[in-house]
Amino acid sequence: MNELAIVEYLRKLAGTHASGGLILGIGDDCAVFRPRPGEDLLFKSDQIVEDVHFRRTMAPAVIGQRAIARALSDIAAMGGQSRVCLVSLTVPVSLGEPFIRRFYRGLMAEAHRTGTALAGGDLAHSDKIYCDVSMVGAVPKGKALRRDGARVNDAIYVSGRLGKPWGRRIQPRLILGQSLLGKATACMDLSDGLALDLHRLCVASQVDAIVEKVPIYRGAALERALHGGEDYELLFTMPAQLATPKGVTRIGTIVRSQGKPGTVSFQGTLLPPKGYDHFQPSTMKE
Amino acid sequence: MNELAIVEYLRKLAGTHASGGLILGIGDDCAVFRPRPGEDLLFKSDQIVEDVHFRRTMAPAVIGQRAIARALSDIAAMGGQSRVCLVSLTVPVSLGEPFIRRFYRGLMAEAHRTGTALAGGDLAHSDKIYCDVSMVGAVPKGKALRRDGARVNDAIYVSGRLGKPWGRRIQPRLILGQSLLGKATACMDLSDGLALDLHRLCVASQVDAIVEKVPIYRGAALERALHGGEDYELLFTMPAQLATPKGVTRIGTIVRSQGKPGTVSFQGTLLPPKGYDHFQPSTMKE
Repeated sequence: MNELAIVEYLRKLAGTHASGGLILGIGDDCAVFRPRPGEDLLFKSDQIVEDVHFRRTMAPAVIGQRAIARALSDIAAMGGQSRVCLVSLTVPVSLGEPFIRRFYRGLMAEAHRTGTALAGGDLAHSDKIYCDVSMVGAVPKGKALRRDGARVNDAIYVSGRLGKPWGRRIQPRLILGQSLLGKATACMDLSDGLALDLHRLCVASQVDAIVEKVPIYRGAALERALHGGEDYELLFTMPAQLATPKGVTRIGTIVRSQGKPGTVSFQGTLLPPKGYDHFQPSTMKE
Repeated sequence: MNELAIVEYLRKLAGTHASGGLILGIGDDCAVFRPRPGEDLLFKSDQIVEDVHFRRTMAPAVIGQRAIARALSDIAAMGGQSRVCLVSLTVPVSLGEPFIRRFYRGLMAEAHRTGTALAGGDLAHSDKIYCDVSMVGAVPKGKALRRDGARVNDAIYVSGRLGKPWGRRIQPRLILGQSLLGKATACMDLSDGLALDLHRLCVASQVDAIVEKVPIYRGAALERALHGGEDYELLFTMPAQLATPKGVTRIGTIVRSQGKPGTVSFQGTLLPPKGYDHFQPSTMKE
């Protein structure tokens, strides 16, 4: 299977219908996209690297799903709808065509489920599997949910349960994110653990946070729920008087910063901003 | 240097000014971009992989320049202006901070030169250097230069000279591309060699091509000018009566297809669509 044949396969898999604003898809130098009036666009790229974010022993379709789901989770965190994506993939020669087909089938299933068109990408060979997904989403003009809007006395919420085992299927919270537009004051997705991510949200908003309880995934240790990465749930703040959305748990309250903003306490003790850091000792992300 | 410190460095390097439609840059889950009315957007991602597209012995700033210039060349090929980019980078732990800083300095110099804002990206560690650049460009609505518009009797042109030595600095032809809007009937950039790329343009346009001469880079072999990759010049077609733009050479004429479209002849003999294919024997791209 040569590059031309793979591109042809992907073009068919992507479909020829102009969806989500895509006017020209795979096959030219660039994809052409027509924005709708009254919308801002969201851009995000997220890479997954073999032995860092996944093992080669995982099913190729699951790796493909993870690759796109991580970027979709960021679109969800801004309250956006996903529109189109570009996928750059590097694979070892030895894995060849079967891997590529299965990888893209997993990826495209998630793309179709979320209304995301495959607009293009790039293919190359190397020793390890590497994939970078670039995602384009859309939100009503000026309405994107940012990290820097949390206010004193806002309630803090998370979706789902935290501390999920590594390698579990990521479910991007797109519908929840969209439902928070005009309600949440700040929002982000949990990719590096509650402690570190809530610290980041508080720094951006120049406030502190008090956490009283955390919804823990069944069987998970508290340590993992607080400091483990890859939960891909939404963390957001909202005025406390607004009704709690379905499927989320109030975990605490935003408070005025007493010193350096970003201090998070959990059940009365200081929660250090410790989580997964790609540039600390190079262990498997878990 | 941990991830947070690197992101902070990049945020400063990128600048805080909202340029090219960027409303929110590095530091949140997604970048936020406000499209201008009356424009279509162009999306492209291009990856460079160590030992495929470059060697580690190249200066980090040159690798960074190549990484962004390849994607800029695709924007040029559609007649676009570049607006923002996202950069995903994976580096070996051993190269560390000095490599990252120099790589981004080279990349950002090219970004600034071309008016491209750095909107975000991703960092990870692995054994090899890997970079994927996602580029967002813009063209007047409906005016993007595609591959599929070449018409019988159109003149065929290329910019610059072909067969450049591998590893040479890539100069994306953005100004030329923009000057061809409303004039060129088809356009693409030469990344896999004239023979293969002109074949692709002809297939897309359902025509054949006759090539009479090729402007050859000093000292290059004809074989390299016809079949070598990485020239990153523009290949385009235009009605023959329009004036030849500055810095380009007419190389031939589009003709009616006699059989299967895409046949290219050179000085009377058939030119096989042979060029660089990433999925054929895994040699260094040259």
